[in-house]
Amino acid sequence: MIEAIAFDAYGTLYDVYSVERKCEEEYPASGAAMSRLWRQKQLEYSWLRTLMGRYADFWHVTEDALRYTLAELGLEGDEEKIAAIMATYLELEMYPEVIEAMARFGTRKKAILTNGNLGMIEPLVARSGLGAHLDACLSADETGLFKVRPEVYQLAVDHLGVARERLLFVSSNGWDVAGAKAFGFTVGWLNRRGLPPEELGVRADYEATNLLELAEMVEASA
Amino acid sequence: MIEAIAFDAYGTLYDVYSVERKCEEEYPASGAAMSRLWRQKQLEYSWLRTLMGRYADFWHVTEDALRYTLAELGLEGDEEKIAAIMATYLELEMYPEVIEAMARFGTRKKAILTNGNLGMIEPLVARSGLGAHLDACLSADETGLFKVRPEVYQLAVDHLGVARERLLFVSSNGWDVAGAKAFGFTVGWLNRRGLPPEELGVRADYEATNLLELAEMVEASA
Repeated sequence: MIEAIAFDAYGTLYDVYSVERKCEEEYPASGAAMSRLWRQKQLEYSWLRTLMGRYADFWHVTEDALRYTLAELGLEGDEEKIAAIMATYLELEMYPEVIEAMARFGTRKKAILTNGNLGMIEPLVARSGLGAHLDACLSADETGLFKVRPEVYQLAVDHLGVARERLLFVSSNGWDVAGAKAFGFTVGWLNRRGLPPEELGVRADYEATNLLELAEMVEASA
Repeated sequence: MIEAIAFDAYGTLYDVYSVERKCEEEYPASGAAMSRLWRQKQLEYSWLRTLMGRYADFWHVTEDALRYTLAELGLEGDEEKIAAIMATYLELEMYPEVIEAMARFGTRKKAILTNGNLGMIEPLVARSGLGAHLDACLSADETGLFKVRPEVYQLAVDHLGVARERLLFVSSNGWDVAGAKAFGFTVGWLNRRGLPPEELGVRADYEATNLLELAEMVEASA
């Protein structure tokens, strides 16, 4: 029934915790507040730029969101600190269960489908050795739009060549889960932080706390 | 130079503080956290539903956001409390300087341009006596989209019949300021909370802390 799998990257395959650690290192006592507001503004800017028709790539959006965050929190926008914090996005750790889970998903086609531009995501894939398990690394950048626009999810259909409902889309982000389900994918939610589902009128087909658990659920229902 | 003025409603003309007070009354010690998260989710849901092509009106979105907020904060989703808190949206206080500022803006055409559906916004206009100062009350609901989509801002152009740059759009919300400026309006930002500007590649033409101050700035530059 599931013939291919597409994975979100940030928070799903790659742990963004090291970003918080670096924020704390550069701006002591502000790391938690910074990383929370930064993530919120990063997403807001991706949605707002898409709605406004003013696309800029995810690296640009992420740096803009960091600058806003520093200003709102009354922290100095030091260029060296900004560069050092941004660089952590190229060195995120992969979650420990990912490689084993990839094997569990078997010979199905697999791809990353991310808001990140290739310049952001390819260094992570190379560094983590995930490339050998993937058939494609797809970026929203190709469309000039961000998730949750349908054109972005359509990339996976076009590149993997399977019908929407036979493609399992996996994300840890509730809003991405909703967008993918509205598009018509079968959706697995990695609810790593134990959050309630977003109230957007759709629900995930599977919910698990990590990727290995999700692979087992999909296997059991196949 | 400025021939017409369009005003955002929530936070711009109408003070949403009473919402926080009611949250605190119904869920003691949680009012501040509730109202902050609720506002964030209300906006997120308006943007995500527009991007997903799954419009629901702002009342619906607002109630969905409230339900999510209660769930995330671990508070009981009591139906009577939800109804009581939602009802405060129909009884928001107008900011004290609004009527005097309306007079200061003179005989220029004036309209509200809000995400709120008419069922939400008309009770506020009637209750506050603002109707006598307005030529139109325009809702995003007419487009089936929310701000910051250009189609929503276009409503003001169509109904007031002036060129974009001769229309002053006034909002207290930084994201709305960016959307309106990207659309081509002359924009006044009521920065009531002393926030930095959003990093979305555009800036307001005027920045003031309240509507009377903005009216004086526009008058001085006319």
